[in-house]
Amino acid sequence: MLCVVGIGAGNREGMTFAAHQAIERSELIVGYTKYVELVRELFPDKQFASTGMRQERERVEFALREAADKTVALVCSGDPQLYGMAGLAYELSEGFPDVGIEVVSGVTAAFSGGAVLGSPLTHDFAVISLSDLLTPAEKIRRRLECAAECDMVIVLYNPSSKSRADYLQKACDIVLKHRSGATVCGYVRNIGRDGQESRVLTLSELRDTAVDMFTTVYIGNSETKVIDGKMVTPRGYRNV
Amino acid sequence: MLCVVGIGAGNREGMTFAAHQAIERSELIVGYTKYVELVRELFPDKQFASTGMRQERERVEFALREAADKTVALVCSGDPQLYGMAGLAYELSEGFPDVGIEVVSGVTAAFSGGAVLGSPLTHDFAVISLSDLLTPAEKIRRRLECAAECDMVIVLYNPSSKSRADYLQKACDIVLKHRSGATVCGYVRNIGRDGQESRVLTLSELRDTAVDMFTTVYIGNSETKVIDGKMVTPRGYRNV
Repeated sequence: MLCVVGIGAGNREGMTFAAHQAIERSELIVGYTKYVELVRELFPDKQFASTGMRQERERVEFALREAADKTVALVCSGDPQLYGMAGLAYELSEGFPDVGIEVVSGVTAAFSGGAVLGSPLTHDFAVISLSDLLTPAEKIRRRLECAAECDMVIVLYNPSSKSRADYLQKACDIVLKHRSGATVCGYVRNIGRDGQESRVLTLSELRDTAVDMFTTVYIGNSETKVIDGKMVTPRGYRNV
Repeated sequence: MLCVVGIGAGNREGMTFAAHQAIERSELIVGYTKYVELVRELFPDKQFASTGMRQERERVEFALREAADKTVALVCSGDPQLYGMAGLAYELSEGFPDVGIEVVSGVTAAFSGGAVLGSPLTHDFAVISLSDLLTPAEKIRRRLECAAECDMVIVLYNPSSKSRADYLQKACDIVLKHRSGATVCGYVRNIGRDGQESRVLTLSELRDTAVDMFTTVYIGNSETKVIDGKMVTPRGYRNV
């Protein structure tokens, strides 16, 4: 049995009871080194196996193999679907027909970070990853274009990395074709962890801000405003 | 102090530790009748106040007023930002300058329902509510059009109601202009509650299916497939 578990932002408070239980009843916990460290603090007596970044396929195959005769928890940050391991576990499960898979959802960074900023995600929104490692850059640009055009709040995952230092700037330039430079934006770094930082700023300011890969970025819709320092999207487009 | 708390799908397992703690330390718990009933089962000794549907403004004002001299939890299903009360709490807080607001995020239906179906939300996606109560219908249509055009997975909230029986059909017709009728779709009704039901089906079939307001609907992207009965969106557009 393989349980693909979302642990939320990484502290115990952000984890669901179901996630905690799934890890508790597992004999082996598998994950990316960084997340395994977070979980090990909560379950010091468990058996762990960790693999580095970009070794997703190896990690999931290992977890599936181990799950043939024991209960294995494959831990992911946030929710295990979104840019996580749940989809890959199903894809690779065709080689492991006897292993059952269960997905335990978690609070993804869009929401845990949104709560830090205020309430940016009150209304329709789109989540787009700026990483072009597994997605053609043209497809990402098209999605930014479409989401900007129809006035949805936009959440950007993986906004930057060493080899993609100017991706956030390019993304903002696409959005700026459809939205004012005064559009309310925000970002949160290290959500729910030591060194959490957040900032509310305009789209023009965001364009010229450097963020790292541990940051989640929010671009408001035409109605998003700043209330007492918080980023707040109203519930609807009519007065309530 | 007002704590706007997301309780997830409605059972204890889907709640985060932070949400549980926030309710535990509150002196009064306020919410829509249905969600207050769910929370009352977990905290039978607490004091509760509930209001009916569409009384959001009254509910939030009441909670802010009470929060002037006690700790109040305003509970929402799923996450308190998304179509919830967090945004309204900030908007109305301008009349209650002494009341502090904290938002405690929760697992929204898109993710808890997605875990039931498999892993539809592995990649970029858009969440759109079909309710035109607070949003002009033209804006909703435009968003469906844009999200369909750029091949994002689409999650529909509030897909139907008595007065909007054909809204899902109309939404599917918009998406069908850009995606094949064979596109993998799914829906989940009563997520995490008694009577939970789910189905994986094609976009053509979804178009002719009646769903109710307790249902969350998923429209896959061009890569979404069915694996052993589950709805699975691959991690990327390149082979991993």
